[in-house]
Amino acid sequence: MSDLNIGLIGSGRIGQVHAGSIADTKGASLAWICDPFIEGAEKLAAEFGGKVTTNPEDVFSAGDVDVIVVASPTPTHLDMIDRAIDAGIHVLCEKPIDLDIAKVEQLRDKANAANVHIAIGFNRRFDPQFESINKRVAAGELGTLEQLVILSRDPGPAPRAYIAVSGGIFRDMTIHDFDMARYFVPDIVEVFAAGANVFSEDIKAENDYDSVSVTMKGRNGEIVVVVNSRHSAYGYDQRLEAFGSDGMLFAHNISPTTVQKYDASGTSNGEPFIDAFLVRYAVSYRRELALFLDGIRDGKNYNPTFDDGRAALILADAATESARTGKTVSVDGKL
Amino acid sequence: MSDLNIGLIGSGRIGQVHAGSIADTKGASLAWICDPFIEGAEKLAAEFGGKVTTNPEDVFSAGDVDVIVVASPTPTHLDMIDRAIDAGIHVLCEKPIDLDIAKVEQLRDKANAANVHIAIGFNRRFDPQFESINKRVAAGELGTLEQLVILSRDPGPAPRAYIAVSGGIFRDMTIHDFDMARYFVPDIVEVFAAGANVFSEDIKAENDYDSVSVTMKGRNGEIVVVVNSRHSAYGYDQRLEAFGSDGMLFAHNISPTTVQKYDASGTSNGEPFIDAFLVRYAVSYRRELALFLDGIRDGKNYNPTFDDGRAALILADAATESARTGKTVSVDGKL
Amino acid sequence: MSDLNIGLIGSGRIGQVHAGSIADTKGASLAWICDPFIEGAEKLAAEFGGKVTTNPEDVFSAGDVDVIVVASPTPTHLDMIDRAIDAGIHVLCEKPIDLDIAKVEQLRDKANAANVHIAIGFNRRFDPQFESINKRVAAGELGTLEQLVILSRDPGPAPRAYIAVSGGIFRDMTIHDFDMARYFVPDIVEVFAAGANVFSEDIKAENDYDSVSVTMKGRNGEIVVVVNSRHSAYGYDQRLEAFGSDGMLFAHNISPTTVQKYDASGTSNGEPFIDAFLVRYAVSYRRELALFLDGIRDGKNYNPTFDDGRAALILADAATESARTGKTVSVDGKL
Amino acid sequence: MSDLNIGLIGSGRIGQVHAGSIADTKGASLAWICDPFIEGAEKLAAEFGGKVTTNPEDVFSAGDVDVIVVASPTPTHLDMIDRAIDAGIHVLCEKPIDLDIAKVEQLRDKANAANVHIAIGFNRRFDPQFESINKRVAAGELGTLEQLVILSRDPGPAPRAYIAVSGGIFRDMTIHDFDMARYFVPDIVEVFAAGANVFSEDIKAENDYDSVSVTMKGRNGEIVVVVNSRHSAYGYDQRLEAFGSDGMLFAHNISPTTVQKYDASGTSNGEPFIDAFLVRYAVSYRRELALFLDGIRDGKNYNPTFDDGRAALILADAATESARTGKTVSVDGKL
Repeated sequence: MSDLNIGLIGSGRIGQVHAGSIADTKGASLAWICDPFIEGAEKLAAEFGGKVTTNPEDVFSAGDVDVIVVASPTPTHLDMIDRAIDAGIHVLCEKPIDLDIAKVEQLRDKANAANVHIAIGFNRRFDPQFESINKRVAAGELGTLEQLVILSRDPGPAPRAYIAVSGGIFRDMTIHDFDMARYFVPDIVEVFAAGANVFSEDIKAENDYDSVSVTMKGRNGEIVVVVNSRHSAYGYDQRLEAFGSDGMLFAHNISPTTVQKYDASGTSNGEPFIDAFLVRYAVSYRRELALFLDGIRDGKNYNPTFDDGRAALILADAATESARTGKTVSVDGKL
Repeated sequence: MSDLNIGLIGSGRIGQVHAGSIADTKGASLAWICDPFIEGAEKLAAEFGGKVTTNPEDVFSAGDVDVIVVASPTPTHLDMIDRAIDAGIHVLCEKPIDLDIAKVEQLRDKANAANVHIAIGFNRRFDPQFESINKRVAAGELGTLEQLVILSRDPGPAPRAYIAVSGGIFRDMTIHDFDMARYFVPDIVEVFAAGANVFSEDIKAENDYDSVSVTMKGRNGEIVVVVNSRHSAYGYDQRLEAFGSDGMLFAHNISPTTVQKYDASGTSNGEPFIDAFLVRYAVSYRRELALFLDGIRDGKNYNPTFDDGRAALILADAATESARTGKTVSVDGKL
Repeated sequence: MSDLNIGLIGSGRIGQVHAGSIADTKGASLAWICDPFIEGAEKLAAEFGGKVTTNPEDVFSAGDVDVIVVASPTPTHLDMIDRAIDAGIHVLCEKPIDLDIAKVEQLRDKANAANVHIAIGFNRRFDPQFESINKRVAAGELGTLEQLVILSRDPGPAPRAYIAVSGGIFRDMTIHDFDMARYFVPDIVEVFAAGANVFSEDIKAENDYDSVSVTMKGRNGEIVVVVNSRHSAYGYDQRLEAFGSDGMLFAHNISPTTVQKYDASGTSNGEPFIDAFLVRYAVSYRRELALFLDGIRDGKNYNPTFDDGRAALILADAATESARTGKTVSVDGKL
Repeated sequence: MSDLNIGLIGSGRIGQVHAGSIADTKGASLAWICDPFIEGAEKLAAEFGGKVTTNPEDVFSAGDVDVIVVASPTPTHLDMIDRAIDAGIHVLCEKPIDLDIAKVEQLRDKANAANVHIAIGFNRRFDPQFESINKRVAAGELGTLEQLVILSRDPGPAPRAYIAVSGGIFRDMTIHDFDMARYFVPDIVEVFAAGANVFSEDIKAENDYDSVSVTMKGRNGEIVVVVNSRHSAYGYDQRLEAFGSDGMLFAHNISPTTVQKYDASGTSNGEPFIDAFLVRYAVSYRRELALFLDGIRDGKNYNPTFDDGRAALILADAATESARTGKTVSVDGKL
């Protein structure tokens, strides 16, 4: 099989992750790196190869690009997808699709009718722990799935400037958990959310929450609970429990070591969890890309779709509304 | 110190637990056992001593009773407390005080003005794990408490006949978690609840839920999440995590053994958790009683009070309403 | 069934444990407490009942004693057993039988021919964890048992005066592990031991070791490894792993709590293990006594026998010799 | 910095691991692959690059080789080291140096006087868990190191043909544990070993053991215990505990997942451990190589030396003798 040529849009933090994944993936070749901040693109090219440009049009018109990976700022996502469709180029786009559901709806029909593969970067579906639980639940190991508890806390908050344009915690951070909820319970019908400001004056000043919980109900009575915080003293906290009629499957955090200390002050004392989400989810970013490329070769889309990205945004919007009004928001028939 | 004479009202399952606790507690003497089903009282008396009667009046008028422990059915609780106050007898009453908040309110002023100690049997406050976390949180070990997650699942549902008169899952089962929430965050201001029917036709037929979650907010933005199920394949599931600005304290289930199996099918495989709540919480029942008796001797009430019992019921009522309406219910100023 | 009347010989630390066990055991009645230090006996009698004496003859000749529990100093053990046999009284004797194997041999035939039950107090066989592993191994859950690893460390050393008369670490401390070895692998054929002095000048001055390991081989090639230390900073350390052709069963230490701390300095941090062996093994002391009394009623001896006590001493002697000579000592045909 | 050119001697299982490590290591370039089985060399070259030859002389005389990595059969090791010294090429040689200590001694002076770096491939020193414990012990976190327990079991035995030429379990498998022992306690003075045949007729037929334990004593009374088995039903078992006056550090096995199952048959049930040592120690192989190359650039040897390889073999010889004779073997002054 010949390599798939990839154009990377965006050379920031996530762009760098994808560049590394492309370099590690057999059958993938980094052809272009596009960033208005050309030094960023050049730095990545020096490490991983590829041509550089400040103009995405160069990538779309190059003629030798099979796939674009969109890691540019959120407001550019829909436009990149749209242009990729027109250019007949497959597209793996970072989450969220957009912060405005109305704009998402405008592209929806075109996206669903497109002849190219469109995938949204909900990389956690490719985390080996969560994927394993998902497959085991699907295989019936827990009988009927009844409850899903997702505990997800970031090591520390993003800078205020980022918070200001993030769309709020539900659209920025919880959106991963909304997709994880739908990974297990696709047919969500109700959303309730509670938000609080318990530690960050910056986040409060941006009229956003630093601590939230979300409760969702699935069509068959499944209860999904998400607990989020924008900080965690002991490192990145990413746990999930799937509870069913026959038992429970639990994914604990990944420890950087198996070493435990026992002394007069305590026992089984391990090291704090990994801080950086890029390290915690390095494997899932690589698997996400590899599966997307496999899908292109197989003519099937194995990744979260445009509609999955849209559904997560609808849930985030519902949570935002619920947290403000104190009322459950129905999403029945809307996802 | 001379023994405190105790009259036990009710010789059913919980009454038997209290009889055992009384026998194990220094300075406590089981003087009377009262039950309209006299064989139950006689059987307990044969094992632990004490006079028997079918008429509570015999206990109140005996003149040698310092304390009554009320383990009779819920509808009798308020009357027993009322008569104990009149008789000048201290009273430790099982939860809930009543299923009807209006009746509770009627006795409230009298209860709070009473010269006797009144305690409500929220025994989990005396569980060594939860108590330890509570004290460590109070000592500031976590910085500011921000989130509390209570996972509480029964091994299996009660019989339909019990469900029918239980007042519903929030007043019957979750009420323990409402008190646990208030043990950590006394000043709850908002309640949201979601209920579902996922496994029991009996419970559904009684118009009750078998699976619920509750979200509460405290005055200072604390988010408290409770997840309940009426069944659990792996045994009684009682976990709690207190999350604060400086870290987390987590109480796992108590295993019946430390033995783990490692073989080709899996590793670290332990035995299912203890099934019976009486075994799981045997220690907390004993500590509850011992502390109540200590309090009488010290002239201080160390146990959950009448008002704590009332507050838990108000939260349960709010949850019941919220689960039906899908709206957050404010309890600000009502607890 | 009528109670079995028990005479307790010795009111020291272990005597107190047994007095408590007798009080907790149905069908057991504490009839006599004998100690030359009469205040000790009187103090126990005040708490648990029973007549007191400084002269064991009073117990043997009382006529109403069914069982004696021997918790007096080691040099008295053989004499007590001997007199109990003559008096037709069953005897549960603390370990070791004696420090001198020659004296043990002198009583052996008489002990084995006696019409009374004789049990040696290797209480760890009645620890629920170790017993469970033993039964599961016997049931074939591990296939063929191939290796046994016993990690056993005391919280801190006994006082020098005790060390001086203890018979050395192998006869005093490791003797429990020798019996545990034989609980799983009765037919030991070879013993090797290594001893070291790494922390205690007192123990060194007594010409004893503070740190040892023992390697034994069973008839079928089973390798048994024991690691001992006279101190442990993190509390009483009592672990065991049974390794077989089909897997491993592991018994971890018992934690005083399930509470774990997670913060910036570490994760899963629990409390140190229980320090006091009396607390750690409280359950096994009670089960040891209960089973001994059951055995008397059933006409069967369910406890470690006189010959089990003798075998453990032979292994301790062999280890003592091996540690001095550096040579494996054969015990083939001697146990 | 310019790349160091590496000649790989041997393209078998371990050779393939090293080829992968070289490809993953910055500043390393695979220049030659030498194997009399030329197809093996060619296959590796196709994946990782480099010239191929059946004749090591081509590598030594090429003039552009800075380092050789010796992954050919054990009998060739000493010759390769010898020729590398003569050619002025640094050498990283797989363990063991040789099966015959006499031959090792013959090269010793020359090796120690050589102007090139010579390292022996005891890769486990570079395992992050063991290295972390080693550094923490060295930093005094445990006070004085008193006991070291190494539990090391292979998933399954090597083929009989390999066993036949392996030099026996102590020189082939335990040799890693001898080096690990010396990593923590360099100055070993005594060795005792016990061997047994519990499951493999093939290994027995080769007059070798399938199950062994070794006890060593360090100069300062440290007791080191190793337990080995040639099979393990639950996967590759590699645990280590360092016990000191102030506590213990424990390295558990690495699990392939954090997912645990809880159901009616058990709790906390994880997946079996990783089976393949190449996967378990993939990281340590890479770190071993990287550190060797760093050492060449820094003019320091950070890896286990020729004398470390010699010491491990002396311990293996001593264990072999001890297992046959049942006597402790002194290695005082010989390492």
